[in-house]
Amino acid sequence: MQHVDTLLFGGTVLTMNRNLDSFAPGAVAIQGDSIVAVGPQEAVRAQYRAEHEVDCRGQIIMPGLVNAHTHMPMSLLRAMADDLRLDVWLMGYMMPVEREFVSPEFVRLGTQLSCAEMIRGGTTLFADMYYYEADVAAAAAEAGLRGVCGQTVMKFPTPDAESYEQSLAYTRQFIEAWRDHPLIVPSVAPHAPYTCTDEILQACAELALSYGVPLQIHILETRQEAEESWAEFEKKVVNRVAELGVFRARTIAAHCVHVDTEQIRLLAQHGVAVAHNPTSNLKLASGIAPIKEMLERGVRLSIGTDGAASNNDLDMFEEMRLAALLAKGATFDPEVLPAREALLMATRWGAEALGLGNLTGSLEVGKRADLIVLDQQPVHNTPRFERDPNAIYSQIVYAGQAADVQHVMVNGRWLMRERALLTLDEAAIRQQAEEYARRMDAFLIAREGNVLNKLVAIGGLQQEESFEIQVKAIVDGDGEALIARLLQNPAVQVVKHHHYRQYDTYFLFDDEDQGRVRYREDDFIGEGGEPVAVRTRLTYTIPDKAREFDEAVLLSHSRFIAPADRPLRFYREYFKAHRECEVHKDRLRWHVLYKGVLFYVNLDQIMMPKTEHRYIEIKSRTWSQRDAEYKAALTAEILNEVLGISPAERVRMEYVDLC
Amino acid sequence: MQHVDTLLFGGTVLTMNRNLDSFAPGAVAIQGDSIVAVGPQEAVRAQYRAEHEVDCRGQIIMPGLVNAHTHMPMSLLRAMADDLRLDVWLMGYMMPVEREFVSPEFVRLGTQLSCAEMIRGGTTLFADMYYYEADVAAAAAEAGLRGVCGQTVMKFPTPDAESYEQSLAYTRQFIEAWRDHPLIVPSVAPHAPYTCTDEILQACAELALSYGVPLQIHILETRQEAEESWAEFEKKVVNRVAELGVFRARTIAAHCVHVDTEQIRLLAQHGVAVAHNPTSNLKLASGIAPIKEMLERGVRLSIGTDGAASNNDLDMFEEMRLAALLAKGATFDPEVLPAREALLMATRWGAEALGLGNLTGSLEVGKRADLIVLDQQPVHNTPRFERDPNAIYSQIVYAGQAADVQHVMVNGRWLMRERALLTLDEAAIRQQAEEYARRMDAFLIAREGNVLNKLVAIGGLQQEESFEIQVKAIVDGDGEALIARLLQNPAVQVVKHHHYRQYDTYFLFDDEDQGRVRYREDDFIGEGGEPVAVRTRLTYTIPDKAREFDEAVLLSHSRFIAPADRPLRFYREYFKAHRECEVHKDRLRWHVLYKGVLFYVNLDQIMMPKTEHRYIEIKSRTWSQRDAEYKAALTAEILNEVLGISPAERVRMEYVDLC
Repeated sequence: MQHVDTLLFGGTVLTMNRNLDSFAPGAVAIQGDSIVAVGPQEAVRAQYRAEHEVDCRGQIIMPGLVNAHTHMPMSLLRAMADDLRLDVWLMGYMMPVEREFVSPEFVRLGTQLSCAEMIRGGTTLFADMYYYEADVAAAAAEAGLRGVCGQTVMKFPTPDAESYEQSLAYTRQFIEAWRDHPLIVPSVAPHAPYTCTDEILQACAELALSYGVPLQIHILETRQEAEESWAEFEKKVVNRVAELGVFRARTIAAHCVHVDTEQIRLLAQHGVAVAHNPTSNLKLASGIAPIKEMLERGVRLSIGTDGAASNNDLDMFEEMRLAALLAKGATFDPEVLPAREALLMATRWGAEALGLGNLTGSLEVGKRADLIVLDQQPVHNTPRFERDPNAIYSQIVYAGQAADVQHVMVNGRWLMRERALLTLDEAAIRQQAEEYARRMDAFLIAREGNVLNKLVAIGGLQQEESFEIQVKAIVDGDGEALIARLLQNPAVQVVKHHHYRQYDTYFLFDDEDQGRVRYREDDFIGEGGEPVAVRTRLTYTIPDKAREFDEAVLLSHSRFIAPADRPLRFYREYFKAHRECEVHKDRLRWHVLYKGVLFYVNLDQIMMPKTEHRYIEIKSRTWSQRDAEYKAALTAEILNEVLGISPAERVRMEYVDLC
Repeated sequence: MQHVDTLLFGGTVLTMNRNLDSFAPGAVAIQGDSIVAVGPQEAVRAQYRAEHEVDCRGQIIMPGLVNAHTHMPMSLLRAMADDLRLDVWLMGYMMPVEREFVSPEFVRLGTQLSCAEMIRGGTTLFADMYYYEADVAAAAAEAGLRGVCGQTVMKFPTPDAESYEQSLAYTRQFIEAWRDHPLIVPSVAPHAPYTCTDEILQACAELALSYGVPLQIHILETRQEAEESWAEFEKKVVNRVAELGVFRARTIAAHCVHVDTEQIRLLAQHGVAVAHNPTSNLKLASGIAPIKEMLERGVRLSIGTDGAASNNDLDMFEEMRLAALLAKGATFDPEVLPAREALLMATRWGAEALGLGNLTGSLEVGKRADLIVLDQQPVHNTPRFERDPNAIYSQIVYAGQAADVQHVMVNGRWLMRERALLTLDEAAIRQQAEEYARRMDAFLIAREGNVLNKLVAIGGLQQEESFEIQVKAIVDGDGEALIARLLQNPAVQVVKHHHYRQYDTYFLFDDEDQGRVRYREDDFIGEGGEPVAVRTRLTYTIPDKAREFDEAVLLSHSRFIAPADRPLRFYREYFKAHRECEVHKDRLRWHVLYKGVLFYVNLDQIMMPKTEHRYIEIKSRTWSQRDAEYKAALTAEILNEVLGISPAERVRMEYVDLC
């Protein structure tokens, strides 16, 4: 007779192992963090005694659920904004609120709130992607959950980094700090192919490979992503990511709604695990992932709730039920993804998808004791049929509820007993969460009618590269000599040349925090001096500190652009600016490569307000802070060495300052 | 200061009235079965005092949910058989088990089980369709729920009637008995256009109209229904039903998955209410109903769970969430069916769909007190945003759970307080339900390998008309004189004539309860005496009492047919019959109209086993018992008066008896 820490008996044990063994009644013996016996009750009890023996009659003992894709801190944004167009939801609500509120404190609290909900719903393993991921990891570890924590990296500035170089550095540090934790697996999370440059994707893959940690990424959540990838790269998204070598890392790809057969084959071939998020994909109207085909072609599958901002909960019972239902309804095939397989996706397959199949996901001797106990008594679980071995999976998947979960254990530690949480103070979490909600409400009320909001509502808004390098100088005479010097320099190669008249109308606001909107009309001038084409668009500049670097001016604007397909008058009335300012210029523009780097060189004659002299302007844009610094240095070089303009001749102004 | 029975205060009151008024904190005053005040807490408490004052702080007070389509007794079949092809599920499991087990006792118990689940999940009003509906009504009324109870009528024999005439008579009686009940609205439920003849549909509409009760019907649940209606009637299903005048009755049409624009317009024009069943439609892989278009074209919409055999629960929180999600994902439009409208579908719109909008569905003075109280405290409902008036609907629809329901009141009576049921004994219900499940398991185990099961598994099985009228007589000579007499009679009109050789192989079983299968090959003979076409099929005859009527033999077989596209050898090995028997005959067949009624007249020469004389056979089939009796009388007339065959000359046998 062996003595162990804990023994669960009397319930139906569903192991979810390769044979789908089940024992009714069965028992599970636990010593320390691990399972030492699973089997028929009589056999296990004949061999083991425990200090804590838990009677599970009328209950099911099974592995905990695996939530393979979520953003835990976003539970603080639950129901803040729903039923909106994706761009309105994202750029009008999520991003501004995150920019304002996301902090280590916010992230810890949101993680605690999510852990409380996930434990109550029987989740024992999660994969998260967010900012300040070290704080996510710390809060989750304290709550006792097992998790893969992915630090987000992307080309845009994030709440925790001004550039992706900062994110990468932070991620490396984070991985170093957490790589040996018993519960947390640190991970790198390049946000998505469309929010990452090739360089970022490759750097993230290298990081994941060098530490042997998983890589998490969103792939093809929307149809738009598929279309834009084709337009920009002439490549399908999965093909591009595969070619960049990203899949050499153990990859978990969330969503994969719009993958076609070729891309499904690639995912299968590279062993990429897909995290299916049916609720979020429906709610944001992204579409329905082709789960039937992925199953048939051997893609590893798992299920995630996505964040509570788009779900709006973290209920894996709902999620696996919806996965099972949707796969059938979308294919007119009621035999696809039977309950048994949906439950596998939410347990063992999920753990395998996250690279933790050796540790958890099923009840097997030697694995960690990550398990839950479900009540079979409630009327919605009545009656129980025993003839068909699939009936119990049906019961759990099609009729089960989060509220059926009675006990939860992770790594041999009880996190919930009799529906009481043992590691989290729900009342305190709730109170702090409500305080945050009040502050976010106040922030949103204060910015009702805010300019960015209005722009978002118009549609089509896109965020531009975050770093703009620009420098200006006054030109003596007509500038022809200067341009000749530029074009004759052997280090300079002209790529394109345009001549256009640019009519800018700036909408300015007394409250400078509102930023400024520019309605811009470019009339392209043909060889005969007549306008040949017109382009109109809006640009929106968020107020930001322009930081000077070296001898050029380095700006780190957050700038957005949108097509302007309505007349100027409409925008004037729509934005209700406090002041307007017009700048018209005649511009000669050259796209040039200098040492292989693209710059824009403008020779501008300001037509309004009337100005005597011409300006020369050199500009460049980039997502990377390091690249911005490099380009700023090259810009200074062009000015000094190519054009012979000394730093003293430069003017530190933007054209809007002319009004 | 007025004294009332009950006063709820302190919570957020969501009225779901036409203005969507809400009060936070609000109060509701109840006297007898009705609401006497709804409004801001201060105003209501200034005017009313009650013996029972219920503190609802941190809670939501709202109308109860409306489950607009279900089959309550089927909760006893929950998870008995899932993830199967529709025909296998229906004909292999549901129908045989229902045939065996459905009784008034079964129906009462299943209704109690469902009522317990529905009350726990906040449903206060349901619409049911089943058999022995008076027992459904009695059990539901005793549980205290409000409901529209629909007695099923169809052309097939049902567990509660051998013919639809019996069902109609029963329905009339049922309506008479329940028409004035304070909670129950009796209703007639022609099962579906494809399971009802035109005559049945018209009779049901007349019944509904004459008593002013609603009519419930399944419409276009499957694509097959659309195809078969076109093939059989050259009409779309909704058009056919509309033309038959069914929609003159207040109609609730369940499913409507495969309605096109023309049919949606018809539904809107006739004020037909649609009960949307998203879970069941996905789980049985029927498809996704076009809710967006129905909304746009003004169709009345409501939500139902369908029965627990295909859902597998009766959880309206899940159902309204799925309705809201699916409408978006299926149309790529995230603004369709916002949470607010999904909740309307599940409350006021639902009550209006069932014709009870004047009584219930919203919290308004004068309406019945049908309300629920939800807990807002659980972490999955945290935090609460107040800036956006839609946030509370989002919270309920996207994150709410059945387990959030704290109290339930119907008609001024508490059915649940603090999650304890007050009108039902759950332990007793559970115990009896488990006993039924064991018996059904045993029944299914006993018939593993059963012949009907095997036939169903082959696919394509269809149930034939339930009544067959047939009579045989031995013919003197070659029968030419007899046939001449038939064809020359002015009351007889020949519609079709065939000559074929019919090769029947009967598979017979020692256990006669297994019925018998016939593999039948018809070789059609051309004018030159050569076979010109072959048809093979299986027919399956369930053992049943052949009842003699008048002077002809009236059989009430349940007979199924299926195409036989595999060789005889396959079926021989597949069914493993205990005995086989072959009957070959050369048949001359005439389809004749006698007094406008279709009969088949066969002149048969038995080739094997060798038989001296020929037989004449007169046959007819029908769904209707009354029609069967009428046709039996005509058959006797043809024999006696047209052919001059006296009753004594008839032979009472089937050809299978020749072996």
